[in-house]
Order: sequence, then structure tokens, then C-alpha cells
Amino acid sequence: MMHVPSMIKSYPKDLGKVDEVKLAACIAACIECAQTCTACADACLSEDSVGELTQCVRTDLDCADLCAATGNVLSRHTGQDLNITLAALRACWMVCKACADECEQHADRHEHCRICAEACRRCEQACMDLIAELG
Amino acid sequence: MMHVPSMIKSYPKDLGKVDEVKLAACIAACIECAQTCTACADACLSEDSVGELTQCVRTDLDCADLCAATGNVLSRHTGQDLNITLAALRACWMVCKACADECEQHADRHEHCRICAEACRRCEQACMDLIAELG
Amino acid sequence: MMHVPSMIKSYPKDLGKVDEVKLAACIAACIECAQTCTACADACLSEDSVGELTQCVRTDLDCADLCAATGNVLSRHTGQDLNITLAALRACWMVCKACADECEQHADRHEHCRICAEACRRCEQACMDLIAELG
Amino acid sequence: MMHVPSMIKSYPKDLGKVDEVKLAACIAACIECAQTCTACADACLSEDSVGELTQCVRTDLDCADLCAATGNVLSRHTGQDLNITLAALRACWMVCKACADECEQHADRHEHCRICAEACRRCEQACMDLIAELG
Repeated sequence: MMHVPSMIKSYPKDLGKVDEVKLAACIAACIECAQTCTACADACLSEDSVGELTQCVRTDLDCADLCAATGNVLSRHTGQDLNITLAALRACWMVCKACADECEQHADRHEHCRICAEACRRCEQACMDLIAELG
Repeated sequence: MMHVPSMIKSYPKDLGKVDEVKLAACIAACIECAQTCTACADACLSEDSVGELTQCVRTDLDCADLCAATGNVLSRHTGQDLNITLAALRACWMVCKACADECEQHADRHEHCRICAEACRRCEQACMDLIAELG
Repeated sequence: MMHVPSMIKSYPKDLGKVDEVKLAACIAACIECAQTCTACADACLSEDSVGELTQCVRTDLDCADLCAATGNVLSRHTGQDLNITLAALRACWMVCKACADECEQHADRHEHCRICAEACRRCEQACMDLIAELG
Repeated sequence: MMHVPSMIKSYPKDLGKVDEVKLAACIAACIECAQTCTACADACLSEDSVGELTQCVRTDLDCADLCAATGNVLSRHTGQDLNITLAALRACWMVCKACADECEQHADRHEHCRICAEACRRCEQACMDLIAELG
């Protein structure tokens, strides 16, 4: 997703003290995770064992919503109101952790859960890195 | 928005210890605030003085994204993972406070900012009430 | 949802030839429908018969996404690019019709599907009215 | 964005007659375009000449909303209700075309508009290809 760092570089004002590489990595991780969770929820709905996967569908949907919103907040690269950015990152970090925990429980039976757990772990880590950088 | 409490009442499983009135109020406040912020951002873009309102547009857009995501998380009424719900509520509470602070600065000149500040304050309060209830 | 017409009235520029009452009604119907579909999908996931409701969950989720996006496009009241507004309205109208058809099949057993079908029919009608007005 | 085709391959049911390569390309183009438009709107707000870029900001925001919604609808890989998929694709195609046209007008002065116009053209083409495939 080379467009993410390209857009950061083309930003006409100063971005403040934020590390551009970590910011780009976190934006990319958020939107990748949002798409993967949306697809995983749909794949779970197609499993014959959907009745045992309803918690997974829900956590996927919560994770998709919060990752998409956080990706948008970060794409506004403002950094001006650090409190908002950090609160969004903390919510995103928490839901990615919960969704990774949930999907890992089904990863051996469902490839979509295995891939989704990986995307969630990457986003969890990227959020943590950016929180450490900004906090 | 009578459909919000009606949908909560029709939920087939136990909602846990959550106060249904506060939950419904918070969902309604989130989606009202999201729409108002989206409209306020657009109205700011139509003002001749848009150059002085760019921070307001950004905060409106961040607020719209986080309110919409939080409204969705709350509409899943799970309550099962309280940590996710609380983290989303805290991010929403913080951005509503920031957006109300910003819009209030322009409220005497721009009616859309005055209305938007009110919607943000209502949502800030509704989030705080639900955090106190769940926390 | 009195904030919707209030925000339209506070818009600083000319809205063009659009009927403000129909525009406000359609925005309100879109965001009400989006929330109701999100809640209906979650309620379906809580039914013991979730295995028979997976198509309903999916249509609910598609409907929620397209109603939310259309509500945002309409809240920008631009009207300047009528083609975009009309294309969004047509997609929203179509998904609301499909979701109402689907939810009506479960309306006698599931109150959440009955309420959701009503919200979808209202939004379908509001989209059709606005398409007729603008088209 | 290798996770997009990986998730499509892990889908447990038959995807119907859809071309998986075109589907994956369109999903990736939608979410890339949504992020780029969100960032371009923010970059426009940071330009000293923001007063001349308000139409660009709006079209960016409409494009971001409709691309994100369409990316979600496609990620549900249902294909079951072709009418919904096609209506979403048509709205997405139209807004991408409008946003590319708008951003191209500022591409020589603003690098973010140049990159955004490219992302919009790619998504416009990907939507057209998938419409031709499915229609």
C-alpha cells in the first residue's frame, strides 16, 4: 500500500514530531484489518458451524468498525489533538487484541480465521508502536 | 428515534446488567452527533471564512467517524466484551468534548456550529453516563 | 430527529432546487435504517436459529453500509453533482428493498426483523421520493 | 494487499461465477481509494488556497464514503444479490470518475491531488471491469 506513505509525504503542512514510517504502517494495518475482519465475518456466516461462530462474527464486526474509524482519524494526520488520536488508537488496539484472541481459537479449523488473527495481531502491534511513539 | 429502544427490547438474549434507557440514549446520541458533524463540516466548507474553519471541519470529521463506529459497537448490544465497549465510549466521549469545544468558538457566528456543539455535548454526556454505568 | 432539518436550514449557501422536507426525511430514514439493520444483524446472531438467518444478517450488513454512506452523501447537501447523489440513492433504494423483502420473511417469528423491515420500507420510499424529486 | 485474495480463497462456499482476480482487484482498489480520498481531503484543508478547494474536499469525502461501503459489500462476496452489488459498483464507479475529474484539475499544483486522481481512476476502472464481468 505505497499510496499511504506517498500521501503522508505530499501533506502540505508540518506533521509534527510523529514518525512517518510508524504512522503509515498503522494506517495500512488498520485498513487491511478492517477489510479482513469484514471478510472473515462473512466467511464465518458461510460455515455450517455458524452457530458456534457468532461471537467471532460480532468481534469481527466491532473490529472492522473501529479499525476503519481509526484509519480515517490517522489519515487526517493532524496530530494536533493528540488526545483524540490516542483514544482512537487505544480502542483500536483493544479490539484488535480481542479479535485476534477470538479468531485464534478457530484458526486450526478455519483458514479465514487464521488469516484474520494475523491481520489483527499486526494492527494491534502497529497501534501499540504508534501509542508508544505519541504517548 | 423510537426504533432504538424498540430494537433493544426485541433482542432475543439477555443484555446483562446494562441500563437499557442509558444504552438507547447513547446509541441515539451517537448517530445524531455523527450526522450533525457530517453536515456541520459541509456547512463550514460553504462559509466564505472557510480558511478559519479548517480545524472545525477536521474535528467534525473525526467526531463523525468515531460516533458512527461507537453507535455500531453499542448497537451490537453485546456487552460481552466490556473492554471494547468502554474503550470505544472513551474515544467517543473525548472526541465529542473536543468537537463541542471547537464548535462553541464559532457558535455565535455560525448557527450550524451552535447546533453541532449541542449535539456533541449531548453525546459527550450520554457516553459519560454509560461509562459510569458500565465501568 | 429535529437536528436534521435544523442543520439543513443553517446551511450558508443556496441548496438549489431540492425539496428540503424530502431531503431531511431521506437523511433521517437512512440513518435510522442503518442503525436498525446493524441491531437486527446482531439480534439474528443471537437467535438459536441463526443458521437459517445468515442471508438476513448479510443483507442487514450491506443495507447498513449503503444507508450510512448515502446518509453522509446527502448530509453534504451539495446537490452540485446530481449524478453522485442519484447513484447513491439508487443503490440505497435497491438494498433497502432487498433487506425489507428478506426481513419480512422472518417478521412473524422475530420482532427485530419486523421492525427492521419497516425501517427499510420507510427508507426505500424516502429514497424513491427523493429520486423522483431530483431525477 | 495480498490478504484480499487470500481471504477470497479461504471462503468456505462457492463464490458463483465471479472472476476472483477482478473481485480482489476491485476490493483492493476501493479501500485504497477510500483512504487516499480521506487523506486528500485533509491535505486540501491544509492548503493556503483551501477556499478554492472546497469542491475537491467534498467530492473526496463522498468518494471515501461510497468506496468504503462498496469495498464492504464486495468483501461479503455474496454475489447472491447481484442487484445490490451492481448498484453499489455503479455508484462507486460514478463517484470515482467525478473525484478523478476534480482532482486532476489541481494535480499540477498539489501532489496529493495527483496521487488521489490516480487512485480514483484505478478504482473507476476496477469497478467498470467488475460491472462488465457481473452485468
